[in-house]
Amino acid sequence: MPVNSNKSMKRLKMGMIGGGPGSFIGEIHRIAARLDNKIDLVSGAFSSDFKKTEKIGEDLGLSASRLYKDYETMIKTEATLPKEDRMDFVVIVTPNHMHLPPALLALNTGFHVLSDKPATLNYNEVVVLKDAVEKSGLLYGLTHTYLGYPMVKQAKFMVKSGCLGKVRKILVEYPQGWLSQNIERSANNKQAEWRTDPARSGISGCMGDIGTHAHSLVEYISGNIMTQVCADLNIFVEGRMLDDDGSLLFRMDNGAKGVLTASQICAGEDNNLTIKIYGEKGGIEWCQHYPFNLIYRPIDLPEQILTAGVNKAYLCEEARKACRTPAGHPEGYLEAFANIYCEFVEAIMAFNNGIKTNEFIGIEEG
Amino acid sequence: MPVNSNKSMKRLKMGMIGGGPGSFIGEIHRIAARLDNKIDLVSGAFSSDFKKTEKIGEDLGLSASRLYKDYETMIKTEATLPKEDRMDFVVIVTPNHMHLPPALLALNTGFHVLSDKPATLNYNEVVVLKDAVEKSGLLYGLTHTYLGYPMVKQAKFMVKSGCLGKVRKILVEYPQGWLSQNIERSANNKQAEWRTDPARSGISGCMGDIGTHAHSLVEYISGNIMTQVCADLNIFVEGRMLDDDGSLLFRMDNGAKGVLTASQICAGEDNNLTIKIYGEKGGIEWCQHYPFNLIYRPIDLPEQILTAGVNKAYLCEEARKACRTPAGHPEGYLEAFANIYCEFVEAIMAFNNGIKTNEFIGIEEG
Amino acid sequence: MPVNSNKSMKRLKMGMIGGGPGSFIGEIHRIAARLDNKIDLVSGAFSSDFKKTEKIGEDLGLSASRLYKDYETMIKTEATLPKEDRMDFVVIVTPNHMHLPPALLALNTGFHVLSDKPATLNYNEVVVLKDAVEKSGLLYGLTHTYLGYPMVKQAKFMVKSGCLGKVRKILVEYPQGWLSQNIERSANNKQAEWRTDPARSGISGCMGDIGTHAHSLVEYISGNIMTQVCADLNIFVEGRMLDDDGSLLFRMDNGAKGVLTASQICAGEDNNLTIKIYGEKGGIEWCQHYPFNLIYRPIDLPEQILTAGVNKAYLCEEARKACRTPAGHPEGYLEAFANIYCEFVEAIMAFNNGIKTNEFIGIEEG
Amino acid sequence: MPVNSNKSMKRLKMGMIGGGPGSFIGEIHRIAARLDNKIDLVSGAFSSDFKKTEKIGEDLGLSASRLYKDYETMIKTEATLPKEDRMDFVVIVTPNHMHLPPALLALNTGFHVLSDKPATLNYNEVVVLKDAVEKSGLLYGLTHTYLGYPMVKQAKFMVKSGCLGKVRKILVEYPQGWLSQNIERSANNKQAEWRTDPARSGISGCMGDIGTHAHSLVEYISGNIMTQVCADLNIFVEGRMLDDDGSLLFRMDNGAKGVLTASQICAGEDNNLTIKIYGEKGGIEWCQHYPFNLIYRPIDLPEQILTAGVNKAYLCEEARKACRTPAGHPEGYLEAFANIYCEFVEAIMAFNNGIKTNEFIGIEEG
Repeated sequence: MPVNSNKSMKRLKMGMIGGGPGSFIGEIHRIAARLDNKIDLVSGAFSSDFKKTEKIGEDLGLSASRLYKDYETMIKTEATLPKEDRMDFVVIVTPNHMHLPPALLALNTGFHVLSDKPATLNYNEVVVLKDAVEKSGLLYGLTHTYLGYPMVKQAKFMVKSGCLGKVRKILVEYPQGWLSQNIERSANNKQAEWRTDPARSGISGCMGDIGTHAHSLVEYISGNIMTQVCADLNIFVEGRMLDDDGSLLFRMDNGAKGVLTASQICAGEDNNLTIKIYGEKGGIEWCQHYPFNLIYRPIDLPEQILTAGVNKAYLCEEARKACRTPAGHPEGYLEAFANIYCEFVEAIMAFNNGIKTNEFIGIEEG
Repeated sequence: MPVNSNKSMKRLKMGMIGGGPGSFIGEIHRIAARLDNKIDLVSGAFSSDFKKTEKIGEDLGLSASRLYKDYETMIKTEATLPKEDRMDFVVIVTPNHMHLPPALLALNTGFHVLSDKPATLNYNEVVVLKDAVEKSGLLYGLTHTYLGYPMVKQAKFMVKSGCLGKVRKILVEYPQGWLSQNIERSANNKQAEWRTDPARSGISGCMGDIGTHAHSLVEYISGNIMTQVCADLNIFVEGRMLDDDGSLLFRMDNGAKGVLTASQICAGEDNNLTIKIYGEKGGIEWCQHYPFNLIYRPIDLPEQILTAGVNKAYLCEEARKACRTPAGHPEGYLEAFANIYCEFVEAIMAFNNGIKTNEFIGIEEG
Repeated sequence: MPVNSNKSMKRLKMGMIGGGPGSFIGEIHRIAARLDNKIDLVSGAFSSDFKKTEKIGEDLGLSASRLYKDYETMIKTEATLPKEDRMDFVVIVTPNHMHLPPALLALNTGFHVLSDKPATLNYNEVVVLKDAVEKSGLLYGLTHTYLGYPMVKQAKFMVKSGCLGKVRKILVEYPQGWLSQNIERSANNKQAEWRTDPARSGISGCMGDIGTHAHSLVEYISGNIMTQVCADLNIFVEGRMLDDDGSLLFRMDNGAKGVLTASQICAGEDNNLTIKIYGEKGGIEWCQHYPFNLIYRPIDLPEQILTAGVNKAYLCEEARKACRTPAGHPEGYLEAFANIYCEFVEAIMAFNNGIKTNEFIGIEEG
Repeated sequence: MPVNSNKSMKRLKMGMIGGGPGSFIGEIHRIAARLDNKIDLVSGAFSSDFKKTEKIGEDLGLSASRLYKDYETMIKTEATLPKEDRMDFVVIVTPNHMHLPPALLALNTGFHVLSDKPATLNYNEVVVLKDAVEKSGLLYGLTHTYLGYPMVKQAKFMVKSGCLGKVRKILVEYPQGWLSQNIERSANNKQAEWRTDPARSGISGCMGDIGTHAHSLVEYISGNIMTQVCADLNIFVEGRMLDDDGSLLFRMDNGAKGVLTASQICAGEDNNLTIKIYGEKGGIEWCQHYPFNLIYRPIDLPEQILTAGVNKAYLCEEARKACRTPAGHPEGYLEAFANIYCEFVEAIMAFNNGIKTNEFIGIEEG
């Protein structure tokens, strides 16, 4: 997956479901898809209000004929286009409750799917989805952004290659402060509104929204599965219907123990996702606010700060490939997101060449 | 409590129980007691081996007549000396199981007591001790070092004065790595030996040794009491008999929730005690590795870094008084320890003037 | 300049001169131009070897008819295309000695120019270029990347709005370590080769390459002009022909004094551009390694850390507009570069509407 | 020099000249001398006002017979005391212009001298002093505090042992902000008053006061001598008579180049002394605000953060010996100061045993 190479590659065509006005994540997806010039956005059903879809489509330079009033029309119509024109995959960036239906339809109609997390609202739906993915034989990816960071890949590599010895203790924190007050009541915060609404977000608020990121980071880096949890979920803001804070003690299948905290009422915090993993021989620490650094604390030796960059020979190949610039030219969230896209593009291209790979974040990780 | 003043004050006389060769904390106590020139160490029963007591006493410049073979002899003999000669208080720096007996004897014989933490091995003993303190009418202090830091006092002040609004979430971590391997089996590590021995450390290892520091920090800064806990204590190192790691979910009497982690198997960590407290209007963070800084994150405003120093007019009086130098001249662990001594000295002097104050860390906090 | 808006805007067409295989900065420019979906790369003369141009052009999805064997052919041919097809501006990303000739030809032929810095090799050439820009009436921009960072704009705003009072002292450091050894002798480092070659880099190596970035940062943020310098330039690596290190004492037109250090032999450093500006009432510090933060030290108050993000109401409008995401989603070098492009695009669009603006980095700043 | 050992050692007796009320550094010296229990303060001429001397002496518990009305009386009277009673050395903590006279008298009368820096007001006086030291055959030490930090000793060791290869570039900054305004005019700031007065401070203000610290750090760590300078000294605050800011380009005797900045008008800064030294194979960075850390950047490898502590086996012996506690128990400015005292005490003890050592900071370093 040479993200930073100039190797010739045909570009893929993408259709987008959701991502209309007021969607934070829709524009992020579009930037990420565009960044490395491997994907053309060719079609969209961006909003339930078709006027909005038309407006965005025009701004984005899409052909009017590829703008659709809903995802069903889009998927069905695209399927009728000649192969060289029609989209190669759809990306789903709707609120959580609208992740599953378009995913199922797309898979059943023959399109690969890349979905914003979470895959579905609950476990029952996951089973349905998993079944559909298997039956379709197609690719289903999830944009767990934080797994796209080069130094997260380096962390995973270091655990796997034994730098830490057996993992014993995992501490992960994801404090945000933006829901410290009841901003969902103020009509204009569309983000706060749907994320605190059980009908659209599912059975959990904070834990489902950002706790899942913390969880996927734990399993991705450690290479182990979380098997037991003891949780304390809370609603701190009056009138809210879903948890806005929670902590859990957990145990991993290899015997490691840990703590996960996710909160959206940590007033003053932005998006301070931090993970520390300790093994018999040392520890690592990664913080999303300074994502190009990875702290490594080998026992009895000085602490080290590893830094991302295409020129850092001490990094593993996966980490270097996920960089575009030499060290000291900070890359961040958008590039991490773009890395997720690159991996999915690579997987589709391999698929088109008859090779089925799982080198992307799929339903298992989700 | 003008730590940094030149105000005239008679100095107090101190006797020490424990603190012989191989004691880490004994020498720390002596430095702390000496730092501000308010205390003279005049007598000691440093070791169960009197030869060692004699050696240390000579090094410290103590009179041979004030060196004792055991704490009973010391307390009883000192009590017979003229008031102007005999010690004003005893400090107890023995391993945990030997904290209670000398404390009881000293109190019953008429001496104030300053004890290394924990006060006792278990709750039953605490009741006994508390009773003895009350009956004696004397002062009993505990050296919870971390409460002596200026910026911990500033944190307490900020919570109390409402900077954060109502406290909602508390996260405290105390990772150490020095017990990552079974070093207690190697004969020469006296520290590791007694701290992992149930007979000398009590019912808990890590949680009793350092979890207590984290706990006292939570209650001291927040001004609230921890009322419920759900704990997961672990022994990671084979052959060890006491917990070397643990985490707990907790609830405070004001409704705040939190997580406490203490570990001695976080390989690569030194002594990285860190606390974060979030309220409705902002959060604070303090880390013992950089103790002269306090991070304050007011909601919707830039993060602030408050710094210790006698010249920092924005600090509360308690914090400024706990400094000896202007900002930029870092003070640390030994000065924090000395602050605990200063507070106890002030309390004794007030006591001698007929005023009973509780402006020091006593049995309630312990 | 609403970088982060979804406002409808026609996209501009760009031609690129230089940026062939082995060019670090060419690919950076292409990503930056692509990021915000306001520019289509439509034509190119990427390399003196046309085979390489064809290869890159194909990878990038350009039409074969818009690939040219040299810049003269490109500029002249594009000028003959219908207005709706031909490029709106050219970007020049060749080695330094090849910046001026295509710029002059493009301006004289009627194309706006965006050039990688430095504008030219020496002062005489600048005069020629400035003259050509004026005569053409067209726009000429320079990609001084570091001026594109949101927090650099915030720093400029804070100085201008008087937060610091009168500026007194400026300290700027730009240490790199990549030329600590004579890597230009090893045939494969094309970057090192041309940057240390007087024929291609001009009269200065390090000072011209990165000292200029430090210099433009000083003048941009302070709003003052550097009027006097006292320099000590050095060649540390044997056999090198241009300075690889240098420092200078300087004075600004408002009476401020300062120091600028630029070095490419600071072994162990990546790209650690840091600037500190002190006025009568406080100081600010910005470091490119953590570009989303700006440290502000108001006199007698706690240090503040301002953070980039569309949601940070305490930032000036210019800074917020230069962000794409909320705080805590780190943006970096590529986004700063893209901001430079956005500003140039806006200026061209205004130009097309008959408004001549100087709200981009032009020849004066260079 | 086992600072942290319990080895038996007779304690030395010290007399103090200066250090009366309002003296910042006098109290610092007393704490430093007291910290490690190797020194007894036995006599003093603390102030030109004998009432103040008596008051301080009483507070400190000195015998009234050992308090003197001036330094001449003190030195002459102490010389008449029996050897076992009289002071072993004097420490001089007067304003700069009063450093030389008592030093000369003490040396000529047979007392070792420890002096606050600078040794004298100007070069001519240094020659006189040096001559007196040589003739006396006694020890003369200077309390260049910052050289007492463990990690400064580690830095010196790493340069000397070749970790960095040949040193090429040295950057040292010492920004303070406390003289940003004309506080010397306000009657109550005794510190500001004498430090900005040519009669008491000598020919330089800022450069003499703190530039000297930066200079001594450069020479101490690098092991080389500064041979050429090009300076720009400034007075920014109206009405001030001595420089309050300055920068200089310098060259070392080994060919290294560098920049030194010292300023007392960097508003918002406390005492931010920072040094970076780069050699052919890597660089180091030390910052007095976080003095227990040393950053080491080996070329092509991850950055390392070395940490002070008696338990850090990777540190050189000199650094470990200058610690009192394990890593993670921060030591700071007072402990660094105390290390300077310990070294001087060791040298006197060696002297008393007939061994003349130069393992302390003497007149050469000053």
